Amino acid sequence: MIVQKSPLIIGIAGGSGSGKTTVSANIARSIPDREILTIIRHDDYYKDQSHLTMEQRLETNYDHPFSIDNDLLIADLKKLKANQAIQKPIYDFIQYTRSSKSEVVEPSSIIILEGILTLEDKRLRDLMDMKLFIHTPADIRFIRRLRRDVELRGRSLDAVINHYLETVSVMHDQFIEPSKRYADIIIPTGGDNSVAIDLLTAKIYSAHKTRNSV
Amino acid sequence: MIVQKSPLIIGIAGGSGSGKTTVSANIARSIPDREILTIIRHDDYYKDQSHLTMEQRLETNYDHPFSIDNDLLIADLKKLKANQAIQKPIYDFIQYTRSSKSEVVEPSSIIILEGILTLEDKRLRDLMDMKLFIHTPADIRFIRRLRRDVELRGRSLDAVINHYLETVSVMHDQFIEPSKRYADIIIPTGGDNSVAIDLLTAKIYSAHKTRNSV
Repeated sequence: MIVQKSPLIIGIAGGSGSGKTTVSANIARSIPDREILTIIRHDDYYKDQSHLTMEQRLETNYDHPFSIDNDLLIADLKKLKANQAIQKPIYDFIQYTRSSKSEVVEPSSIIILEGILTLEDKRLRDLMDMKLFIHTPADIRFIRRLRRDVELRGRSLDAVINHYLETVSVMHDQFIEPSKRYADIIIPTGGDNSVAIDLLTAKIYSAHKTRNSV
Repeated sequence: MIVQKSPLIIGIAGGSGSGKTTVSANIARSIPDREILTIIRHDDYYKDQSHLTMEQRLETNYDHPFSIDNDLLIADLKKLKANQAIQKPIYDFIQYTRSSKSEVVEPSSIIILEGILTLEDKRLRDLMDMKLFIHTPADIRFIRRLRRDVELRGRSLDAVINHYLETVSVMHDQFIEPSKRYADIIIPTGGDNSVAIDLLTAKIYSAHKTRNSV
Protein backbone atom coordinates (compact mmCIF):
# COMPACT_ATOMS: atom_id res chain seq x y z
CA MET A 1 0.00 0.00 0.00
CA ILE A 2 1.26 3.45 -0.87
CA VAL A 3 0.85 5.93 1.98
CA GLN A 4 1.12 9.37 0.49
CA LYS A 5 2.88 12.05 2.50
CA SER A 6 1.02 15.08 3.79
CA PRO A 7 0.81 18.12 1.54
CA LEU A 8 3.34 20.85 2.26
CA ILE A 9 1.66 24.07 3.37
CA ILE A 10 3.29 27.37 2.40
CA GLY A 11 1.96 30.61 3.90
CA ILE A 12 2.43 33.84 1.96
CA ALA A 13 1.76 37.06 3.89
CA GLY A 14 2.51 40.75 3.32
CA GLY A 15 0.65 44.04 3.36
CA SER A 16 -2.07 45.11 0.98
CA GLY A 17 -0.38 45.99 -2.34
CA SER A 18 2.84 44.16 -1.41
CA GLY A 19 2.68 41.84 -4.42
CA LYS A 20 1.52 38.65 -2.66
CA THR A 21 -1.05 37.84 -5.32
CA THR A 22 1.46 38.44 -8.12
CA VAL A 23 3.99 36.14 -6.45
CA SER A 24 1.31 33.44 -6.05
CA ALA A 25 0.08 33.95 -9.63
CA ASN A 26 3.64 33.71 -10.99
CA ILE A 27 4.26 30.49 -9.06
CA ALA A 28 0.91 29.12 -10.30
CA ARG A 29 1.90 30.02 -13.88
CA SER A 30 5.15 28.02 -13.49
CA ILE A 31 3.25 25.09 -11.95
CA PRO A 32 -0.20 24.81 -13.54
CA ASP A 33 -0.67 21.17 -12.48
CA ARG A 34 -3.41 21.03 -9.82
CA GLU A 35 -2.03 17.74 -8.49
CA ILE A 36 1.14 19.60 -7.55
CA LEU A 37 -0.07 23.01 -6.43
CA THR A 38 -3.27 24.55 -5.07
CA ILE A 39 -3.59 28.17 -3.99
CA ILE A 40 -6.08 29.07 -1.28
CA ARG A 41 -6.85 32.72 -0.63
CA HIS A 42 -7.39 33.63 3.00
CA ASP A 43 -10.16 35.98 1.73
CA ASP A 44 -12.24 32.93 0.81
CA TYR A 45 -12.61 32.32 4.53
CA TYR A 46 -14.13 35.69 5.47
CA LYS A 47 -16.84 35.00 8.02
CA ASP A 48 -20.40 34.31 6.98
CA GLN A 49 -22.44 37.50 7.58
CA SER A 50 -25.84 36.30 6.39
CA HIS A 51 -27.36 37.07 9.81
CA LEU A 52 -26.40 40.77 9.44
CA THR A 53 -28.14 43.57 7.54
CA MET A 54 -26.32 45.04 4.54
CA GLU A 55 -25.69 48.18 6.59
CA GLN A 56 -24.01 46.11 9.30
CA ARG A 57 -22.01 44.13 6.73
CA LEU A 58 -20.57 47.34 5.30
CA GLU A 59 -19.15 48.11 8.75
CA THR A 60 -16.92 45.02 8.70
CA ASN A 61 -13.21 45.71 8.99
CA TYR A 62 -11.76 43.24 6.48
CA ASP A 63 -8.21 44.06 7.57
CA HIS A 64 -8.83 42.82 11.11
CA PRO A 65 -8.26 39.15 12.06
CA PHE A 66 -11.83 38.96 13.45
CA SER A 67 -13.18 39.15 9.89
CA ILE A 68 -11.81 35.71 9.04
CA ASP A 69 -13.12 32.28 9.99
CA ASN A 70 -9.78 30.74 10.96
CA ASP A 71 -11.53 27.89 12.82
CA LEU A 72 -13.02 26.64 9.56
CA LEU A 73 -9.78 27.22 7.67
CA ILE A 74 -7.77 25.28 10.26
CA ALA A 75 -10.22 22.39 10.11
CA ASP A 76 -9.92 22.41 6.31
CA LEU A 77 -6.11 22.57 6.32
CA LYS A 78 -6.03 19.63 8.71
CA LYS A 79 -8.24 17.64 6.32
CA LEU A 80 -5.95 18.51 3.41
CA LYS A 81 -2.92 17.52 5.53
CA ALA A 82 -4.67 14.16 6.01
CA ASN A 83 -5.02 13.91 2.23
CA GLN A 84 -8.78 14.50 2.29
CA ALA A 85 -10.67 16.83 -0.06
CA ILE A 86 -12.44 19.88 1.36
CA GLN A 87 -15.44 22.04 0.48
CA LYS A 88 -13.78 25.44 0.32
CA PRO A 89 -16.16 28.34 0.93
CA ILE A 90 -16.50 31.07 -1.69
CA TYR A 91 -16.98 34.67 -0.60
CA ASP A 92 -19.51 36.92 -2.27
CA PHE A 93 -17.85 40.33 -2.52
CA ILE A 94 -21.06 41.96 -3.74
CA GLN A 95 -23.31 40.72 -0.92
CA TYR A 96 -20.45 40.95 1.63
CA THR A 97 -21.09 37.48 2.99
CA ARG A 98 -20.24 33.84 2.33
CA SER A 99 -21.83 32.64 -0.88
CA SER A 100 -24.12 29.62 -0.97
CA LYS A 101 -21.67 27.93 -3.31
CA SER A 102 -18.48 26.13 -2.35
CA GLU A 103 -15.63 24.57 -4.28
CA VAL A 104 -14.12 21.11 -3.92
CA VAL A 105 -10.38 21.34 -3.32
CA GLU A 106 -8.42 18.11 -3.58
CA PRO A 107 -5.22 17.67 -1.57
CA SER A 108 -2.24 18.50 -3.81
CA SER A 109 1.44 18.11 -2.99
CA ILE A 110 1.76 21.77 -2.09
CA ILE A 111 -0.88 24.17 -0.79
CA ILE A 112 -0.21 27.88 -0.76
CA LEU A 113 -2.27 29.95 1.66
CA GLU A 114 -2.13 33.58 0.63
CA GLY A 115 -3.39 36.68 2.45
CA ILE A 116 -2.43 39.70 4.53
CA LEU A 117 -3.07 37.89 7.84
CA THR A 118 -1.87 34.36 7.12
CA LEU A 119 1.04 34.61 9.59
CA GLU A 120 -0.98 36.33 12.33
CA ASP A 121 -2.65 33.29 13.94
CA LYS A 122 -0.28 30.91 15.72
CA ARG A 123 -2.54 27.93 14.94
CA LEU A 124 -2.16 28.65 11.21
CA ARG A 125 1.60 29.16 11.51
CA ASP A 126 1.90 25.81 13.27
CA LEU A 127 0.31 24.10 10.28
CA MET A 128 2.75 25.69 7.82
CA ASP A 129 5.91 24.08 6.53
CA MET A 130 7.22 27.34 5.12
CA LYS A 131 6.32 30.93 5.99
CA LEU A 132 7.00 33.72 3.51
CA PHE A 133 6.54 37.43 3.95
CA ILE A 134 6.54 39.81 1.00
CA HIS A 135 8.15 43.06 2.10
CA THR A 136 7.32 46.09 -0.01
CA PRO A 137 7.79 49.67 1.23
CA ALA A 138 4.62 51.41 2.46
CA ASP A 139 4.61 54.14 -0.20
CA ILE A 140 4.76 51.60 -3.03
CA ARG A 141 2.00 49.56 -1.41
CA PHE A 142 -0.19 52.66 -1.09
CA ILE A 143 0.45 53.68 -4.71
CA ARG A 144 -0.57 50.22 -5.96
CA ARG A 145 -3.79 50.34 -3.90
CA LEU A 146 -4.52 53.86 -5.10
CA ARG A 147 -4.16 52.86 -8.76
CA ARG A 148 -6.30 49.77 -8.31
CA ASP A 149 -9.07 51.48 -6.35
CA VAL A 150 -9.23 54.65 -8.47
CA GLU A 151 -8.66 53.16 -11.93
CA LEU A 152 -10.33 49.77 -11.61
CA ARG A 153 -12.94 50.35 -8.94
CA GLY A 154 -13.79 53.99 -9.67
CA ARG A 155 -13.34 55.19 -6.08
CA SER A 156 -12.54 58.82 -5.28
CA LEU A 157 -9.06 59.88 -4.24
CA ASP A 158 -10.38 61.07 -0.88
CA ALA A 159 -12.20 57.82 -0.19
CA VAL A 160 -9.07 55.79 -0.93
CA ILE A 161 -6.83 58.00 1.24
CA ASN A 162 -9.27 58.05 4.16
CA HIS A 163 -9.81 54.30 4.12
CA TYR A 164 -6.05 53.78 3.89
CA LEU A 165 -5.20 56.08 6.82
CA GLU A 166 -8.10 55.02 9.05
CA THR A 167 -8.06 51.27 8.47
CA VAL A 168 -5.50 49.72 6.11
CA SER A 169 -2.43 51.42 7.57
CA VAL A 170 -3.54 51.01 11.20
CA MET A 171 -4.28 47.30 10.79
CA HIS A 172 -1.00 46.87 8.90
CA ASP A 173 1.02 48.24 11.79
CA GLN A 174 -1.00 46.36 14.38
CA PHE A 175 -1.30 42.90 12.82
CA ILE A 176 0.57 42.47 9.54
CA GLU A 177 3.99 44.04 10.08
CA PRO A 178 4.43 42.32 13.50
CA SER A 179 3.74 38.94 11.84
CA LYS A 180 6.86 39.39 9.67
CA ARG A 181 8.98 38.19 12.57
CA TYR A 182 7.62 34.68 12.09
CA ALA A 183 8.70 34.46 8.43
CA ASP A 184 11.31 31.91 7.36
CA ILE A 185 12.01 33.93 4.24
CA ILE A 186 11.37 37.57 3.41
CA ILE A 187 10.87 38.44 -0.24
CA PRO A 188 11.66 42.08 -0.99
CA THR A 189 10.02 44.09 -3.77
CA GLY A 190 7.37 41.37 -4.20
CA GLY A 191 5.59 40.60 -7.46
CA ASP A 192 8.10 40.19 -10.23
CA ASN A 193 11.03 38.95 -8.17
CA SER A 194 11.88 36.17 -10.61
CA VAL A 195 14.79 34.84 -8.54
CA ALA A 196 12.57 34.26 -5.52
CA ILE A 197 9.83 32.71 -7.67
CA ASP A 198 12.38 30.43 -9.31
CA LEU A 199 13.66 29.37 -5.87
CA LEU A 200 10.15 28.56 -4.65
CA THR A 201 9.30 26.70 -7.84
CA ALA A 202 12.40 24.50 -7.46
CA LYS A 203 11.40 23.72 -3.87
CA ILE A 204 7.81 22.93 -4.84
CA TYR A 205 8.87 20.48 -7.56
CA SER A 206 11.35 18.81 -5.23
CA ALA A 207 8.71 18.50 -2.46
CA HIS A 208 6.22 17.07 -4.99
CA LYS A 209 8.78 14.50 -6.12
CA THR A 210 9.54 13.51 -2.52
CA ARG A 211 5.84 13.17 -1.71
CA ASN A 212 5.27 10.81 -4.60
CA SER A 213 8.36 8.66 -4.20
CA VAL A 214 7.26 6.96 -0.98
CA MET B 1 30.46 17.71 -27.73
CA ILE B 2 28.99 18.57 -24.36
CA VAL B 3 29.08 22.27 -23.58
CA GLN B 4 28.63 22.64 -19.87
CA LYS B 5 26.57 25.56 -18.60
CA SER B 6 28.13 28.31 -16.53
CA PRO B 7 28.20 27.85 -12.77
CA LEU B 8 25.45 29.62 -10.85
CA ILE B 9 26.83 32.28 -8.51
CA ILE B 10 25.00 32.92 -5.23
CA GLY B 11 26.03 35.90 -3.09
CA ILE B 12 25.39 35.74 0.66
CA ALA B 13 25.75 39.03 2.55
CA GLY B 14 24.76 40.26 6.00
CA GLY B 15 26.37 42.04 8.94
CA SER B 16 29.08 40.67 11.15
CA GLY B 17 27.48 38.12 13.46
CA SER B 18 24.37 37.78 11.28
CA GLY B 19 24.85 34.05 10.75
CA LYS B 20 26.15 34.11 7.14
CA THR B 21 28.89 31.61 7.87
CA THR B 22 26.48 29.27 9.65
CA VAL B 23 24.05 29.41 6.71
CA SER B 24 26.89 28.65 4.28
CA ALA B 25 28.23 25.87 6.54
CA ASN B 26 24.77 24.31 6.84
CA ILE B 27 24.31 24.38 3.06
CA ALA B 28 27.80 22.88 2.62
CA ARG B 29 26.91 20.14 5.11
CA SER B 30 23.81 19.26 3.05
CA ILE B 31 25.85 19.31 -0.17
CA PRO B 32 29.38 18.05 0.50
CA ASP B 33 30.07 17.24 -3.16
CA ARG B 34 32.67 19.70 -4.48
CA GLU B 35 31.51 19.15 -8.05
CA ILE B 36 28.17 20.62 -7.02
CA LEU B 37 29.06 23.36 -4.56
CA THR B 38 32.08 25.54 -3.73
CA ILE B 39 32.08 28.25 -1.11
CA ILE B 40 34.38 31.24 -1.55
CA ARG B 41 34.83 33.64 1.36
CA HIS B 42 35.15 37.28 0.39
CA ASP B 43 37.79 37.53 3.18
CA ASP B 44 40.14 35.39 1.05
CA TYR B 45 40.38 38.37 -1.27
CA TYR B 46 41.60 40.95 1.26
CA LYS B 47 44.24 43.03 -0.48
CA ASP B 48 47.89 42.05 -0.42
CA GLN B 49 49.65 44.28 2.13
CA SER B 50 53.20 42.93 1.81
CA HIS B 51 54.51 46.40 0.89
CA LEU B 52 53.29 47.80 4.24
CA THR B 53 54.91 47.63 7.69
CA MET B 54 53.11 45.60 10.36
CA GLU B 55 52.14 48.87 12.06
CA GLN B 56 50.50 50.09 8.85
CA ARG B 57 48.77 46.74 8.30
CA LEU B 58 47.16 46.94 11.74
CA GLU B 59 45.55 50.21 10.66
CA THR B 60 43.55 48.49 7.90
CA ASN B 61 39.78 48.79 8.22
CA TYR B 62 38.64 45.31 7.24
CA ASP B 63 35.00 46.38 7.27
CA HIS B 64 35.55 48.91 4.47
CA PRO B 65 35.21 47.92 0.79
CA PHE B 66 38.71 49.30 0.10
CA SER B 67 40.21 46.39 2.07
CA ILE B 68 39.12 43.89 -0.58
CA ASP B 69 40.65 43.14 -3.97
CA ASN B 70 37.39 42.98 -5.92
CA ASP B 71 39.26 43.35 -9.24
CA LEU B 72 40.99 40.02 -8.67
CA LEU B 73 37.80 38.41 -7.37
CA ILE B 74 35.82 39.56 -10.41
CA ALA B 75 38.48 38.20 -12.77
CA ASP B 76 38.35 34.89 -10.89
CA LEU B 77 34.56 34.69 -10.93
CA LYS B 78 34.59 35.34 -14.67
CA LYS B 79 37.02 32.45 -15.13
CA LEU B 80 34.82 30.18 -13.04
CA LYS B 81 31.79 31.30 -15.07
CA ALA B 82 33.76 30.23 -18.16
CA ASN B 83 34.29 26.83 -16.50
CA GLN B 84 37.99 27.45 -15.86
CA ALA B 85 39.81 26.68 -12.60
CA ILE B 86 41.27 29.55 -10.55
CA GLN B 87 44.13 30.04 -8.12
CA LYS B 88 42.25 31.46 -5.17
CA PRO B 89 44.38 33.58 -2.82
CA ILE B 90 44.64 32.65 0.85
CA TYR B 91 44.81 35.39 3.46
CA ASP B 92 47.25 35.21 6.35
CA PHE B 93 45.34 36.55 9.37
CA ILE B 94 48.49 36.50 11.53
CA GLN B 95 50.68 38.54 9.15
CA TYR B 96 47.69 40.64 7.98
CA THR B 97 48.53 40.18 4.32
CA ARG B 98 47.98 37.78 1.45
CA SER B 99 49.81 34.51 2.05
CA SER B 100 52.31 33.14 -0.46
CA LYS B 101 50.10 30.08 -0.89
CA SER B 102 47.01 29.82 -3.03
CA GLU B 103 44.36 27.17 -3.57
CA VAL B 104 43.10 25.68 -6.83
CA VAL B 105 39.33 26.03 -7.09
CA GLU B 106 37.62 24.08 -9.85
CA PRO B 107 34.38 25.38 -11.36
CA SER B 108 31.45 23.61 -9.66
CA SER B 109 27.78 23.85 -10.56
CA ILE B 110 27.14 26.40 -7.84
CA ILE B 111 29.53 28.90 -6.28
CA ILE B 112 28.59 30.68 -3.08
CA LEU B 113 30.39 33.94 -2.39
CA GLU B 114 30.02 34.80 1.28
CA GLY B 115 30.97 37.99 3.14
CA ILE B 116 29.69 41.20 4.71
CA LEU B 117 30.31 43.25 1.55
CA THR B 118 29.42 40.81 -1.23
CA LEU B 119 26.39 42.87 -2.35
CA GLU B 120 28.15 46.24 -2.11
CA ASP B 121 29.97 46.28 -5.48
CA LYS B 122 27.71 46.49 -8.53
CA ARG B 123 30.21 44.53 -10.63
CA LEU B 124 29.94 41.63 -8.21
CA ARG B 125 26.15 41.86 -8.07
CA ASP B 126 26.01 41.74 -11.85
CA LEU B 127 27.86 38.41 -11.80
CA MET B 128 25.42 36.87 -9.33
CA ASP B 129 22.44 34.72 -10.24
CA MET B 130 20.98 34.98 -6.75
CA LYS B 131 21.56 37.55 -4.02
CA LEU B 132 20.79 36.70 -0.40
CA PHE B 133 20.94 38.92 2.64
CA ILE B 134 20.90 37.50 6.16
CA HIS B 135 19.01 39.91 8.39
CA THR B 136 19.70 39.61 12.10
CA PRO B 137 18.91 42.41 14.59
CA ALA B 138 21.90 44.55 15.63
CA ASP B 139 21.82 43.55 19.31
CA ILE B 140 21.98 39.84 18.47
CA ARG B 141 24.81 40.47 16.02
CA PHE B 142 26.75 42.42 18.66
CA ILE B 143 26.21 39.72 21.30
CA ARG B 144 27.53 37.02 18.93
CA ARG B 145 30.63 39.11 18.17
CA LEU B 146 31.16 39.82 21.85
CA ARG B 147 31.03 36.14 22.76
CA ARG B 148 33.39 35.18 19.95
CA ASP B 149 35.92 37.92 20.60
CA VAL B 150 35.95 37.64 24.40
CA GLU B 151 35.61 33.87 24.76
CA LEU B 152 37.52 32.62 21.73
CA ARG B 153 39.97 35.42 21.05
CA GLY B 154 40.57 36.59 24.62
CA ARG B 155 39.87 40.26 23.88
CA SER B 156 38.76 42.67 26.60
CA LEU B 157 35.17 43.85 26.87
CA ASP B 158 36.27 47.46 26.32
CA ALA B 159 38.29 46.60 23.22
CA VAL B 160 35.35 44.74 21.69
CA ILE B 161 32.87 47.54 22.46
CA ASN B 162 35.17 50.29 21.16
CA HIS B 163 35.98 48.45 17.94
CA TYR B 164 32.28 47.74 17.44
CA LEU B 165 31.14 51.34 17.97
CA GLU B 166 34.01 52.98 16.09
CA THR B 167 34.26 50.65 13.09
CA VAL B 168 31.93 47.67 12.80
CA SER B 169 28.68 49.51 13.43
CA VAL B 170 29.68 52.57 11.35
CA MET B 171 30.69 50.46 8.33
CA HIS B 172 27.55 48.36 8.75
CA ASP B 173 25.31 51.41 8.46
CA GLN B 174 27.35 52.90 5.63
CA PHE B 175 27.95 49.88 3.39
CA ILE B 176 26.27 46.67 4.55
CA GLU B 177 22.72 47.66 5.49
CA PRO B 178 22.26 49.76 2.30
CA SER B 179 23.27 46.73 0.21
CA LYS B 180 20.23 44.81 1.53
CA ARG B 181 18.08 46.61 -1.03
CA TYR B 182 19.72 44.58 -3.78
CA ALA B 183 18.83 41.22 -2.23
CA ASP B 184 16.46 38.86 -4.05
CA ILE B 185 15.76 37.07 -0.78
CA ILE B 186 16.15 38.16 2.83
CA ILE B 187 16.74 35.44 5.39
CA PRO B 188 15.72 36.50 8.89
CA THR B 189 17.32 35.16 12.06
CA GLY B 190 20.19 33.66 10.05
CA GLY B 191 22.19 30.59 11.06
CA ASP B 192 19.82 27.79 11.93
CA ASN B 193 16.92 28.78 9.69
CA SER B 194 16.35 25.23 8.45
CA VAL B 195 13.47 26.17 6.14
CA ALA B 196 15.61 28.69 4.25
CA ILE B 197 18.54 26.28 4.08
CA ASP B 198 16.25 23.55 2.79
CA LEU B 199 14.90 25.93 0.12
CA LEU B 200 18.40 26.86 -1.04
CA THR B 201 19.52 23.23 -1.04
CA ALA B 202 16.58 22.26 -3.28
CA LYS B 203 17.48 25.08 -5.70
CA ILE B 204 21.17 24.10 -5.74
CA TYR B 205 20.40 20.47 -6.57
CA SER B 206 17.96 21.50 -9.27
CA ALA B 207 20.50 23.93 -10.80
CA HIS B 208 23.18 21.23 -10.68
CA LYS B 209 20.88 18.80 -12.47
CA THR B 210 20.05 21.38 -15.14
CA ARG B 211 23.73 22.20 -15.68
CA ASN B 212 24.58 18.57 -16.26
CA SER B 213 21.65 17.61 -18.42
CA VAL B 214 22.72 19.66 -21.47
